[in-house]
Parts: sequence; structure tokens; C-alpha cells
Amino acid sequence: MTRLGETPPLHPAFSLFPVVNGTLSVGGMSLSALSDRAGGTPFYVYDRAKMTERVKLLRRHFPSEIKLHYAVKANPMPDVVAHLAKWVDGADVASGGELTVAKNAGFSAAETSFAGPGKRPEELAQAVEWGALVNVESVREVDILTRLAEELGRSPRVAVRVNPDFGLKHSGVKMGGGPQPFGVDVEQVPLLLAEIGRRRLTFEGFHIFSGSQNLQSAAIVESQNLTLELAIRLSAWAPGPVRVLNIGGGFGIPYFPGDQPLDLAPIGENLRRWMTPLRAALPEAQITGEMGRYLVGEAGVYVCRILDRKVSRGKTFLVVDGGMHHHLAASGHFGQVIRKNFPVAIGNRMGEPATETVSIVGPLCTPMDLLADCIDLPLAQVGDFVVVFQSGAYGFTASPHRFLSHPPPSEILV
Amino acid sequence: MTRLGETPPLHPAFSLFPVVNGTLSVGGMSLSALSDRAGGTPFYVYDRAKMTERVKLLRRHFPSEIKLHYAVKANPMPDVVAHLAKWVDGADVASGGELTVAKNAGFSAAETSFAGPGKRPEELAQAVEWGALVNVESVREVDILTRLAEELGRSPRVAVRVNPDFGLKHSGVKMGGGPQPFGVDVEQVPLLLAEIGRRRLTFEGFHIFSGSQNLQSAAIVESQNLTLELAIRLSAWAPGPVRVLNIGGGFGIPYFPGDQPLDLAPIGENLRRWMTPLRAALPEAQITGEMGRYLVGEAGVYVCRILDRKVSRGKTFLVVDGGMHHHLAASGHFGQVIRKNFPVAIGNRMGEPATETVSIVGPLCTPMDLLADCIDLPLAQVGDFVVVFQSGAYGFTASPHRFLSHPPPSEILV
Repeated sequence: MTRLGETPPLHPAFSLFPVVNGTLSVGGMSLSALSDRAGGTPFYVYDRAKMTERVKLLRRHFPSEIKLHYAVKANPMPDVVAHLAKWVDGADVASGGELTVAKNAGFSAAETSFAGPGKRPEELAQAVEWGALVNVESVREVDILTRLAEELGRSPRVAVRVNPDFGLKHSGVKMGGGPQPFGVDVEQVPLLLAEIGRRRLTFEGFHIFSGSQNLQSAAIVESQNLTLELAIRLSAWAPGPVRVLNIGGGFGIPYFPGDQPLDLAPIGENLRRWMTPLRAALPEAQITGEMGRYLVGEAGVYVCRILDRKVSRGKTFLVVDGGMHHHLAASGHFGQVIRKNFPVAIGNRMGEPATETVSIVGPLCTPMDLLADCIDLPLAQVGDFVVVFQSGAYGFTASPHRFLSHPPPSEILV
Repeated sequence: MTRLGETPPLHPAFSLFPVVNGTLSVGGMSLSALSDRAGGTPFYVYDRAKMTERVKLLRRHFPSEIKLHYAVKANPMPDVVAHLAKWVDGADVASGGELTVAKNAGFSAAETSFAGPGKRPEELAQAVEWGALVNVESVREVDILTRLAEELGRSPRVAVRVNPDFGLKHSGVKMGGGPQPFGVDVEQVPLLLAEIGRRRLTFEGFHIFSGSQNLQSAAIVESQNLTLELAIRLSAWAPGPVRVLNIGGGFGIPYFPGDQPLDLAPIGENLRRWMTPLRAALPEAQITGEMGRYLVGEAGVYVCRILDRKVSRGKTFLVVDGGMHHHLAASGHFGQVIRKNFPVAIGNRMGEPATETVSIVGPLCTPMDLLADCIDLPLAQVGDFVVVFQSGAYGFTASPHRFLSHPPPSEILV
């Protein structure tokens, strides 16, 4: 935590959204107009054009053979998923609830895959009935799917989610390498593949995912190389041709002071080099990248309003009508070991000089309800808008809305 | 985090609930019967008799002059609040939503107070219209209440929430002393009292709260002494007699290995010694203790079911159908700096010897979804019940239910 009087290092400039007459504008609307549209503060607003730009940016860098899937868990708002359904090639879901959202948003079963370390039998049935691809993560799931094949007279589509023997270096979240509840250890995969071959299951390929929220392209390149080599190696044990190869994502966005945006160029170049050897080794394989946060994280902001200004023993608090119950990650209680400030601004005083050091707190009776600790901002007044950037992913749904029984935030797509 | 192979220190024995034929029983019902009642796992179950016992225990130790309030934020389930309304003397609420719950549960406006660092104008209006006591925490709130007094033709009841010049030592959560968004710094209170005296407001007293989740009675005794001395000192500036004096709570419950239950005896004795000097100094003052977690925390358990057993590189994972989206505190992401395991058991194998070391994880695609890390448990099977104790407070409502779009847990009171 930054101590009183210290000046924290500066955030990277977040200039994704235009400023009109000193006020931030999202999707061509001012914060006041957005607040009216949302029914007042607090609210999340997502900019569809920014998501589309992100998809296009990835397509420019990636070989055209690579398909792009949206990881619904990053932001399952139905309007957001429906928008992305028009721009990406498929969806990856992590629950039966997300599967329903993807289906309703217009994704096809053929292009939807379902992963998760603890799939309930009814969720597996839902996926099989619809015809989605199930990324199996244990022998038990293979058994349940075999039973469902009998019951439903289907041949469920399966891929094996592999827990590789490497992790994605320098990741915000490590999910591969070492003991993991995710996927099947690579050492156990050949046995599981043989078992799948003996069941009434349609083997389609592999899902290999080693980490997320990574800002270092060299680490992503290294992990993609290891992933592709591993897929080729594992294909020798496969009960049929590899048709699907989900190489995960792991692409991060900058949140904190010092973070630099990910450089896509070396990742794209490396994937291009892989296309020829991949065609030789896995001629039928469709390579898919899975992106959640990278597509939607920077396209969303959380907006609340200042209720009160309080000075307590030399420290200035801006008390706002939103807080950790709406945006757990910004409060620092969502996987961070050391709390850091999200990028925050007074949305109707953009460009005004930062003349005071303040902490921004919510209405909850707990010191955890802190949106920004000792940051330099323009002199703000009651009624001003506080904007938290980089809030389009793992914001609304990853927060304890019912904590202290305040109204939940609203969500709008513009 | 405990490393693979290390044996963590043991939890205190949690023998609050009886075991019948090896299965935990809550409110006279087995886990299977409870699961049926709840519509399946995962669910929270709260035992009304345990809450009543807690109230009675406090009454035995406290002087009879002291009133007991329930802090609704700890568990706002309407059935729980309605049960406690029959046993305690009043309610403390932290939002307009909680105020509605308290009112519907049968608490009277006369015995309900409303605190919070960021009360919205409509919440203040709701409190004034009903006639609840508002613990004011800033000059702005005094201004809004003055305006409401005119508009509604009322004289709003107010107490001053004081940010003392001391904190509660050894607290899990420090909320007094130093710069705080909570309450008004004691140095500023005389000025605010003078201001209140000039407005159309009914001054009733003070709310002095310095921390929570404390297990050391000596620290609570010291803090209560400082609180009572401070209230007497501040009463010299009060615009009228002190009728209400909320001395907070701060009473903790044991969660982690090494935690010992709070010893109420010295706290009760100390309060008894205070009754005579308090009657002399503040003859009209009703002393109130505010308890949330202490009344309900141990009365509730979270119950989920094992979906899968997985061994990955020598580490055994029990994958359950609940997790951090239902019980954020048990996952270690609710204010803990270092993650510790909540007390956990295989609810249908109580008393069986602990023969394996396992980690209990939920169905979410994130390493944060961890309910217990490397604990020793009896050999458990798919379908067994996993019980998380000490889950009656800050469990259900303090969790991000929508994260990854799984169904929310249900809640039952037995």
C-alpha cells in the first residue's frame, strides 16, 4: 500500500476513449448521457467498436488460418456476447450458464467448446444435446459422456484439455505446469486417448492452456511453441486425426503503473512460421486462439459518482456510490497479492491538472471498499464522475453485488 | 500457502453441530435431508438455535442494562433477521436495502440505526421517513438531513459516528484511529455537535466503533474503556443529553488454526464495573453493543458436493460443485493478506481418520477457486459432502455469485 504523502508511480496513459469538452466519451456519448441511459450511476459501459477493433487487430497480426474464439467468462453480458458473435469464429464457455448465453447470442454448437475442472453431469448433458465440443478434463468426464452417448444416442464431440509440463512464464495467472485441477496431466493423456478411442465418442483434438494475463510477447511465443510441439507429439496417441487445436490465449492488458501493452507482432510472426510445419504434421487441424480479457477488457469502464468529500487527519477521501461490491478487482481483492490501483480518472475533469492526492472509497462499512489509494487527481466535487478504466473483463460478474445490500450496478453496451 | 507434503497446523475442533451415524447434523437434520430441503447442493444452512444460544450467552455475561443490536450486514437473509428480531433489542443497518430487510423482519424504527460512510440522499430519506436513527458521518449528511427535515416536516434522529483517536488492537479489521472514511474524527466532533444543535435535528448520542473480528478480550476491554471515556468527554459538547451510545462490537470468532474463542467473562466484568460511573456521567444513555458476525458466524455452514477426484503430479484434488463464487472468504480472497484454510470437513465421514492430504477446488477455471489447500481428510468419494464451517457471516452475500455464470447457492434456515 502506498503511504500517506507518497506519490505512487504513474499509470500508462489510457487514451482509448475521446474527451469532449473535458468529459470522457464512450461510444459517442458523454458520461451524463450514458448515466441517463443506464438509469443513473453506478454502471458499466462497454464500447462495441473497441471490441471490433480488437478483433481486427488480432486478425491483422495472426495468420488467416487461425480462428479466433471468445472466452465468454471474461464478460458474459448477452449484448456483448451477441456483438462478438458477429466478429469472432466461435465461443469457449466455462459453465452451462455460459453455454446458454453463447447459444442465445448466435454462436453455433459446432464452434462452441466447453471447458472447466468441475463440470456437473447436467452441464455435460446440456453440451452434448446441443452438440458443443467438450474439453474433457478427467476420466470421470469420459465416463459420464459415454453414458450420455448411450442415453441420448449421440456420439459426443470431445477434445482433451491438457495440463502441460510447462507454464506460461511471467503470467498474471498460471494455469499450466505442476499439479493442477485443470485438464489432464500430459503424462496421463496417452492412456486417456486410448480410452476415448474405445468409447462412443468423437475425438476432435486438444485444448492446451498454460496461463493468462501475460504482457510479454516472448513468453507467449515460447509457450505457443511448446504448445504446438506438444500437440504434435500427443497426436501420435490420438484415436483419430486432430481436427481442433485450441492453443489458449494468455494475452494480457495493462492495468497497473509500469505495465506496457502486449506487442502482437512477434506473436503473429511466430505463428506464421508455424503454419507450414503444422500443415505437414496435423493436416486436418484447425488452430484456434481463445481470447477473453484481451477482446473486452479495455472496451469497458465502470462509472460511479462522488457522494461526499471527507478529510480525516490530513487524508482526503472521495466517497463514491459504487465500490468493491461492484468492482472487486479494482478494490484489490481479486487475486492480487499486493494491492495496486486500477487506472482511475475524474471523468468530467479530464485534462485538468492533478492538484490533490485522494483515496476513493465506496459506501461499504469496511476498509476493503477502496477503489483507489492515494492517487493524484484534479480537485473533484460531489456529483463528479469517477471512472475506472480497464473494466470490461472480470468486473461486473466477478463482484459480490449483494454485499451490504446495495443496488447492483447496471450494464450497457454502446 | 502450505507446500505439497507439509502438514498444516490443525484447526480448533468445531464441535458445534452434532454428528449422527458419522454424518453432520444441523438443526436436527442430516446433510442429505438438508440438501433435499435446499433443492440440492451447494447451499448455506443456518441454525436458528445456535443464534439464540449466542444471544443468551452474551446476555449472561453482559450487564442487563446493555442492549444488544444485530448488525444486519453480517447476514441479511430475511429469515435470519426475522429470527434475530425476536431475540435482540434492535438492528444496525448499513444500506437502504438492509433497512428494508430490518423493517420487514419486525424491527422497530426506534431500535434501528443506519451507519455507512457513503449514504445516498434517497437512503437518508428512507431512514428519516421511517424514523430510524441516522449515525451521521460527515457535514454533508447533516446538510442533507436538515433539508429532509424541512421537506418531510420531521426532526430526523441523529447520532454522531465518531472516528476515535485509537484503534482496536489485534483486530482482523481496523476501522478506527488514524485517517478513516468512517465517522467523523473525534477532533472535529465538537464543531459538528454545535452545528447539529443549530439544525432541526434530534440529537440522540454517539456511535463509536473501532474494529472487528477480535479474539482478544483484553484488547476489547481496553477499547471499550477508551470508548466509554471518550463518550463521556464528548458529551460535554453535545447539544442535548446522550440517550444512545453504540459502543460497537468487534467480537471475533475463531476461523483459523491456532485461533481461540473469545473469552466473554472479562469483557462482561469490565462492563459491569462501568455501569455506576456511566449512570452518573450519562444518566439517560442507553448503552448498546452491536454484534454481527459473533451472533451468526458460527451458526452457519456452507455445503457442497464432490464432483470429481483428480490426482495431478502427486497432488490430490477434490473438485466440488461450489467454490469461490459462493464463498469468497473461504477461498482466501476476502481481505486476507495470507491465505489460510477455513475449517472444512467431509460431512458424511465425520470421525473417520484423516488418511490423505487433499486440496478442495471448485468448478471455476481459475486457481483462485480453492476452498482448502493441502488439508488432511478422510478418504472421500464423488458424491460426498464437503462442509465449510464458520460460514454464517459474510458468506453468501459477500461472494461473486455471477462469476462464470454458475447457479447461485441456496440458503436455508433450520
